[in-house]
Amino acid sequence: MIGTEIEHLIKLIGRLPGLGPRSARRVALHLLKNREALMLPLAQALNKAADVIEECPDCHNLDTQRPCAICASSVRDRGIICVIEDIADLWAIEKTGSFKGYYHVLGGTLSALDGIGPEDLSIPHLLERARDDRVKEVIVALNATIDGQTTAHYIADCLHSCNVSVTQLAHGVPIGGQIDYLDDGTLAAALRSRKAV
Amino acid sequence: MIGTEIEHLIKLIGRLPGLGPRSARRVALHLLKNREALMLPLAQALNKAADVIEECPDCHNLDTQRPCAICASSVRDRGIICVIEDIADLWAIEKTGSFKGYYHVLGGTLSALDGIGPEDLSIPHLLERARDDRVKEVIVALNATIDGQTTAHYIADCLHSCNVSVTQLAHGVPIGGQIDYLDDGTLAAALRSRKAV
Repeated sequence: MIGTEIEHLIKLIGRLPGLGPRSARRVALHLLKNREALMLPLAQALNKAADVIEECPDCHNLDTQRPCAICASSVRDRGIICVIEDIADLWAIEKTGSFKGYYHVLGGTLSALDGIGPEDLSIPHLLERARDDRVKEVIVALNATIDGQTTAHYIADCLHSCNVSVTQLAHGVPIGGQIDYLDDGTLAAALRSRKAV
Repeated sequence: MIGTEIEHLIKLIGRLPGLGPRSARRVALHLLKNREALMLPLAQALNKAADVIEECPDCHNLDTQRPCAICASSVRDRGIICVIEDIADLWAIEKTGSFKGYYHVLGGTLSALDGIGPEDLSIPHLLERARDDRVKEVIVALNATIDGQTTAHYIADCLHSCNVSVTQLAHGVPIGGQIDYLDDGTLAAALRSRKAV
């Protein structure tokens, strides 16, 4: 007894990540109850974003300009490229304000199971960028998951032939973390990489 | 360093129920990566639904037709009105296929704290509908929460003057429920309303 238009809307909302059929219904109802304040502005923002946002040809970030604002910046350090899996990781690192080099978004991780090879990611493009003489360091900032670490090792191997140092993020106790609640792997890594006070 | 258009989109998505800032970013990225398949169809569906879907003047359901398909149906039982809090509840009851009367969507529950009185809900309209001679029974199917039950009692009191019987949903063990895991209130209600086998 739900109208076709509402059902179609619920189906589309249900395809968003993290939303099941029940939350999709809840979101659809919330939208229909807030038409002027939320539903129409959202439709407009979706159309606008789909229209103006493009992938950066250099780092594969998304932005309204080509190349993106980060790649177009002249005050950043051309010597460092930070390799990340996804644009969300770029946003997370940018938010810390503690990295002033350039980025390279892979667009995923290698996965033999899903048939994702180096050519499906932007790895060949990364190697090409790393061959630039100005680049001195590549930080491989991939997730500390099995797929992420496999990809990190593969990239480090490929970069051997380029004249760059390859680094990775430090493993250890998260700021604010409680030792009692940490997993064995993190604690072992933190012990191995202990530092003088 | 996130572009204005993306930030605006993330802000709007973050206002949907059940989505925090992190999931809003995730949804926005997913949309931007699936422009043709999801983003543009969603924008279109939002615009279309905002345009064609209206509130039913009889039962306050949402539908593309006025009155809604349920109120316009002639095969349903005019003698029973089922009062629910929200349209999501109407969808849930319709899905069971075990109710063939008409509905009345309140649009919320009474709440002294939030300043929601009977006039803010469609309670006066319900009383008007209940005065129709054809109506024999009003099922008050509100949530078994404190606000829901307060509203149910208020409605039952108001309906005293109308010539209708007022009923409520049965409380008891949910189908598939394990007695060991049930709360005391439900178990006590199930015991009180026990039936001969």
